[in-house]
Amino acid sequence: MTREPIRKSLWTWGTTENEPTDEQRRQAAEAVSAMVGAEVTAPPVPSPDSIELRAPRVVVPERLRSICRTDNHSRAAYSIGGHPMELLQGFRGEFANPPDVVAQPRGEDDVERILEWCADEGHATVPYGGGTSVVHGVTPPDSDSIVTIVMGGLNRVLEIDETSRAARIQAGVSGPDLEDQLRPSGHTMRFFPQSFPWSTLGGWIATRAGGHYATGPTHIDDFIESTRMLTPSGWMESRRLPGSGAGPSPDRLVLGSEGTLGLITEAWVRIQKRPVFRAKASAEFDSMEIAADAVRRIVQTKLWPSNLRLLDPVEAQKAAGGDGVHALLIIAFESSEVPQGHNLRTVIEMVERLGGTIASDSVKVTDESDAISEDGAAAAAWRKSFTGVNVGLIHGLGFVTDTFETAITWDRWPDFDAHIRAKVGRALDSTLTASWLSCRFAYSYLDGPAPYYTFAGLGTTGGEVEQWQIIKAAASQAVIEAGGTITHHHGVGRLHREGWEAQSPELFRAGLTAVKNRLDPGGILNPGVFF
Amino acid sequence: MTREPIRKSLWTWGTTENEPTDEQRRQAAEAVSAMVGAEVTAPPVPSPDSIELRAPRVVVPERLRSICRTDNHSRAAYSIGGHPMELLQGFRGEFANPPDVVAQPRGEDDVERILEWCADEGHATVPYGGGTSVVHGVTPPDSDSIVTIVMGGLNRVLEIDETSRAARIQAGVSGPDLEDQLRPSGHTMRFFPQSFPWSTLGGWIATRAGGHYATGPTHIDDFIESTRMLTPSGWMESRRLPGSGAGPSPDRLVLGSEGTLGLITEAWVRIQKRPVFRAKASAEFDSMEIAADAVRRIVQTKLWPSNLRLLDPVEAQKAAGGDGVHALLIIAFESSEVPQGHNLRTVIEMVERLGGTIASDSVKVTDESDAISEDGAAAAAWRKSFTGVNVGLIHGLGFVTDTFETAITWDRWPDFDAHIRAKVGRALDSTLTASWLSCRFAYSYLDGPAPYYTFAGLGTTGGEVEQWQIIKAAASQAVIEAGGTITHHHGVGRLHREGWEAQSPELFRAGLTAVKNRLDPGGILNPGVFF
Repeated sequence: MTREPIRKSLWTWGTTENEPTDEQRRQAAEAVSAMVGAEVTAPPVPSPDSIELRAPRVVVPERLRSICRTDNHSRAAYSIGGHPMELLQGFRGEFANPPDVVAQPRGEDDVERILEWCADEGHATVPYGGGTSVVHGVTPPDSDSIVTIVMGGLNRVLEIDETSRAARIQAGVSGPDLEDQLRPSGHTMRFFPQSFPWSTLGGWIATRAGGHYATGPTHIDDFIESTRMLTPSGWMESRRLPGSGAGPSPDRLVLGSEGTLGLITEAWVRIQKRPVFRAKASAEFDSMEIAADAVRRIVQTKLWPSNLRLLDPVEAQKAAGGDGVHALLIIAFESSEVPQGHNLRTVIEMVERLGGTIASDSVKVTDESDAISEDGAAAAAWRKSFTGVNVGLIHGLGFVTDTFETAITWDRWPDFDAHIRAKVGRALDSTLTASWLSCRFAYSYLDGPAPYYTFAGLGTTGGEVEQWQIIKAAASQAVIEAGGTITHHHGVGRLHREGWEAQSPELFRAGLTAVKNRLDPGGILNPGVFF
Repeated sequence: MTREPIRKSLWTWGTTENEPTDEQRRQAAEAVSAMVGAEVTAPPVPSPDSIELRAPRVVVPERLRSICRTDNHSRAAYSIGGHPMELLQGFRGEFANPPDVVAQPRGEDDVERILEWCADEGHATVPYGGGTSVVHGVTPPDSDSIVTIVMGGLNRVLEIDETSRAARIQAGVSGPDLEDQLRPSGHTMRFFPQSFPWSTLGGWIATRAGGHYATGPTHIDDFIESTRMLTPSGWMESRRLPGSGAGPSPDRLVLGSEGTLGLITEAWVRIQKRPVFRAKASAEFDSMEIAADAVRRIVQTKLWPSNLRLLDPVEAQKAAGGDGVHALLIIAFESSEVPQGHNLRTVIEMVERLGGTIASDSVKVTDESDAISEDGAAAAAWRKSFTGVNVGLIHGLGFVTDTFETAITWDRWPDFDAHIRAKVGRALDSTLTASWLSCRFAYSYLDGPAPYYTFAGLGTTGGEVEQWQIIKAAASQAVIEAGGTITHHHGVGRLHREGWEAQSPELFRAGLTAVKNRLDPGGILNPGVFF
């Protein structure tokens, strides 16, 4: 096997091809300057030759050398996940705790061989999918020896069952590669997290990721028929079933295990025919309060729109060209089988009855197959901002930004939001200038929304990480105090561990520890996450 | 507290009021005689004075006497679940292994006091909801001392959150009591298993019960916001959330735990406004094959009908007055918010395109609030047969009947069904005369149906249990061999343990055992189920 050079970027999501140029960064600096009312300038992009790393502390046995890397670029690239502050540190050339070895299995046999070696030697073992974790889920722990296992070599769709609409897929496949392999037969998994271009099926399962359905099957959990996972104690594979009530679900132990119980290598997942019929609209509301109540009533009618994203006035302005006063609701239905105009009309009537105004250019009902049909202007702007994020653009500007997300029942939502805004607002005021905090409902359930907050502002160049830490700590504490979950779909990782401990039942954690000790008796897998 | 006499029947579902009379049993015997072409006669209903039981082997401490019973009737009544063969044995006065004590807590404090005593003394402890288990889930184990804890005293709806459409409910409440408490505010949980009149919320959660939605939120799992459970190691209570991705779900450990990890005392569940808009129809198909394919295509359109039950020709004849040749599909939509005629028309068009014939009297579209609106003749007949089951009618006739249920992906369904019919058919032929085997799709998923089989026939009076065992063993083996799940919603209990072991990953069972040892270190809870 020819060894291709590692192309993973050291400072932005994706590969070196995704890295912005100096010119793009200069333009971004100008935009930030205008946004914050202060002159910021972009330092030049770093040269990859300048990486200085701790020397590897592990000798790879001869038999595994062909599937292991120990070069500086590989170890640096896989020492970070996808959090903006990690990537900023990568931009600065700071790689404090790189793995000693980056293993790249090509199949299950290789995964077995590597894991056996790690278990025998007691190496801390970090499963690595696309590396888009924003919660330090793939960041190496504080251990004497660290092996990061990159699952990207297991990237094939192995089987498509057109009758049941399901597919057996290797866990290391990225979103686009997965869709490319389903497309020839007219299928799609249609699981589109914001990290879609880089993240993997195994990562989605391990972290209970959220896709792009705003209602209904939001989490990857809803797509899973069965899972296959290699633990230090052996293989664990569940029976492929459309449903079961035979005791606690084995798959529900794998879902959310975040690399601590085993390496997920395969899953049977539910797929579908590509949508043909689409119906969309956008609506404006005079306030977030009125809009949130409308979303609640719409979702409680159980029409299950594919999109139902509500942007508060600040978010609507930043991400979709809004006027800064109105909240924006993006509504969409889609189906591979039946026209969706009727559902959209029902929701439009509800919106108008509940105080919203439908944007005149936004209503589109189509039956053209495939491709993203044209959106209204607001929805199109929002889509671009959603998929076009490039964290590399703003490194070194002193600009501090992050997101946090949760879920809360409808009855508690207004007080919850007030609490978050007060606590996080204070932290922002004390650390940044020209800051803002915005919110959207990323998902909505019958019994509550999953709010997604974004904050940003200008801090001190070189001090961004410390400033971010203050705000992040305030946000996590506020979410837990006010009754939310520390994460709806980003995961727990090392960053949310305290919040997870605060929200989850102590005896459940004790039980999970008992499982951990049984499946991973050496405690090698992803130390620092959960355990 | 005044102690009411135990009214639980010793030989049929529910209370002594639900017991059929001699005259009703005589009529049932006539009907069975006609059905099997042989004269069978009904022995008289037993007298409850004649119970002979093993003496209690446990002395209840003074402090617990007011909430414990040791009389023969109580111990006999709670020594059996809801399986027809258990009830037949109850009818015969055979109570081989009664609990020594029947505890009846009035609230969580009592549950704590009783469980503490059981843990201290090492009594095998069997949590008991409505006692409708058909899988020996509440049948006492082979232990030196047995305490059955009947949860019916915890029967209140504690809180209703109208905004989030959720309620906090004590686990011992029965279906009708739960609905009675929700009705004044215009709400319903709308969770209607066949055992609804007697089974409890806690029992539904413990067994991952199936409700009456044929698509969409089929299992109780989908209704749960949070759970509260007392284990021998203390309380375990999850945070109330509409959704979360923070590690493996604590509730998913409680769901399906079948009384082996703790006693569920409370849950927050999703409720809804009572449906106002309804739309229904029935369709006939020339064969089960054509009908099954139509159901697959209908469910894959994701219109989420509340009912979509497919009866094979035998079942349609026995339960809904069919001609014995055609398969019957019952279709229904309902909503508290929006009219459902449009959805029904879409499905009717699909049915006609896919080879079905809509019964002319069956199409009803209504917007009347509350109450069960009128059905077409076939659907009404089926509803009556579903909710009107009274196993006490046929005891002692030599009539052997039971059901078994599973789930299987669509691609495997035809071969699966052929395998079941061959294997179970052989067992029926070897044990019963005038037997039949019928099937309905109780639930349908995007990726497969949950088939529900019923068998019946004439065996030997006095030999029914042994004959049933032969058929049941053949059915369980066939289900597992052909790739199904040993249970979709009846539970594992003691009856399905072997099948559960065959279908579930060995390492998952090892992990679950580790959890068991942590939460119930004395192993007192429901021994024989799972562990």
